[in-house]
Amino acid sequence: MSLLVVGTVAFDAIETPFGKTDKIVGGAASYIALAASYFNRDIHLVSVIGDDFPADFLNTLKKEGVNLDGLQIKAGEKSFFWSGKYHNDLNTRDTLDTQLNVLANFDPIVPEGAKECEFLMLGNLVPAVQQSVINQMNKRPKLIVLDTMNFWMDIAMDDLKKTIAMVDVLTINDSEARQLSGEYSLVKAAQKILQMGPTTLIIKKGEHGALLFNKEEVFFAPALPLEDVYDPTGAGDSFAGGFIGYLAKTKDISFENMKRAIIFGSAMASFTVERFGTERLIGLTQENVEKRVQEFVDLVQFDIAVF
Amino acid sequence: MSLLVVGTVAFDAIETPFGKTDKIVGGAASYIALAASYFNRDIHLVSVIGDDFPADFLNTLKKEGVNLDGLQIKAGEKSFFWSGKYHNDLNTRDTLDTQLNVLANFDPIVPEGAKECEFLMLGNLVPAVQQSVINQMNKRPKLIVLDTMNFWMDIAMDDLKKTIAMVDVLTINDSEARQLSGEYSLVKAAQKILQMGPTTLIIKKGEHGALLFNKEEVFFAPALPLEDVYDPTGAGDSFAGGFIGYLAKTKDISFENMKRAIIFGSAMASFTVERFGTERLIGLTQENVEKRVQEFVDLVQFDIAVF
Repeated sequence: MSLLVVGTVAFDAIETPFGKTDKIVGGAASYIALAASYFNRDIHLVSVIGDDFPADFLNTLKKEGVNLDGLQIKAGEKSFFWSGKYHNDLNTRDTLDTQLNVLANFDPIVPEGAKECEFLMLGNLVPAVQQSVINQMNKRPKLIVLDTMNFWMDIAMDDLKKTIAMVDVLTINDSEARQLSGEYSLVKAAQKILQMGPTTLIIKKGEHGALLFNKEEVFFAPALPLEDVYDPTGAGDSFAGGFIGYLAKTKDISFENMKRAIIFGSAMASFTVERFGTERLIGLTQENVEKRVQEFVDLVQFDIAVF
Repeated sequence: MSLLVVGTVAFDAIETPFGKTDKIVGGAASYIALAASYFNRDIHLVSVIGDDFPADFLNTLKKEGVNLDGLQIKAGEKSFFWSGKYHNDLNTRDTLDTQLNVLANFDPIVPEGAKECEFLMLGNLVPAVQQSVINQMNKRPKLIVLDTMNFWMDIAMDDLKKTIAMVDVLTINDSEARQLSGEYSLVKAAQKILQMGPTTLIIKKGEHGALLFNKEEVFFAPALPLEDVYDPTGAGDSFAGGFIGYLAKTKDISFENMKRAIIFGSAMASFTVERFGTERLIGLTQENVEKRVQEFVDLVQFDIAVF
């Protein structure tokens, strides 16, 4: 089924204990679209860039089945740029530079061909911009997934809560779940957040995996223990892209199928962190992905018949 | 099969965000023995207490199948005492007071009846004391599990490494695995530690679950997301007790069976943290435990047949 992805397409400059990049392609929507494209080739992108963006990457997106009609290219302007340095634990980072550029006045326009999409993935952006996209759809999508972050909780909580009330699935990390709910226990936090509108909540815990909640059930997907994590940037977006890409492919939004989707999302994130930027997500083969998913199965599979 | 448990039987005074206790019964061996006794009633305890210890608790241990012939009771001396205060996240704590008392000169004596035990659980203690117990056994046990902590890495690393080289399974937490190996990646840390002697390594990650490694395989057991954690004290020891208790009961030390054992260990830990001290471990029914283990199965079980 068709999938609309909204979010940033941007430049990053990243420093980790393993190395340093110059300006490379990043942005939430880049990771989401590439991860989803492994599962689904009917993807529309809504975003904005300057005229400084490499045609190569746009061609890669097109080749992977991503329709760029909704990608605004602003002549004479620069693309969004973020620069950050990760600490040794790779779980925390300092932002070194943020240049909003084209993002400062981003007014998303959903092209006619994308207004009927059945799946909508709202990558991290100003909550009002995310809302505007929902309002432009011709009919309510079958599933809306929203990703956001603590930054919007700090400066635009009211707007954010309105947007959260409009979606089906919210994905945030553990500290954001605590901030949004005011509860330290993630179980209690989930119960409170599920009162705010979404029927499903995903709490991302980075190297500690992810929790999937609805009002009655909970599922835990581990992260794969990796020898080396080169660059965590985009892990959460790749996770979201794999999650919604798998759901859009299988057209099944039951909790049981979301469990599978979250494993595929985790697999996509595990690829992303093995290289800088989006590199590892491009050209993944079925064998790559099946082998990786089998590692997740082996990691948590046990047989408790001997009781 | 028979199990020998070595470790502290002591007093704790604990403060958590949920409350505060006066002096209550604690100690690694208390938690280990109680958790193991759910599975196995052929348990010997080697430890030391003063004459200030409540007979009630000793009777409880006996009732649960724990033989106390190896428990030294020092007349006119006081039992080991620890007092600590947990921070709001319950993952970190400050030690408020430590009184070694009887532990200062503890010379463990394994009674004749315990020298043939096939399973040996060495709870956290001075590494030289742990070694002394191994050396007193008539024959090498089928399985020796060692628990230790960063404190011994700081002040007795050489002794600790000698002890580690003598055991089959080492259980430590993630930061201790990093300290012992000098590697940040837990996968690399595990590989290095498995060169030090043990065939199996368990890395405990508290609320984030536990990893089980041998040289070829890895298994991840989640922690159960709980609404309230009242008191994390003894969680790691209950985990170890459940783990070795299940192995001693089933007499199977294969990696496959260790996966089951780690789930039962995690279940025991999940009970312990629901109350202060050892309270919740006493009198667990089969129904309690089976229901809890089923929650672990439900938490991580997924069916990836739809590929």
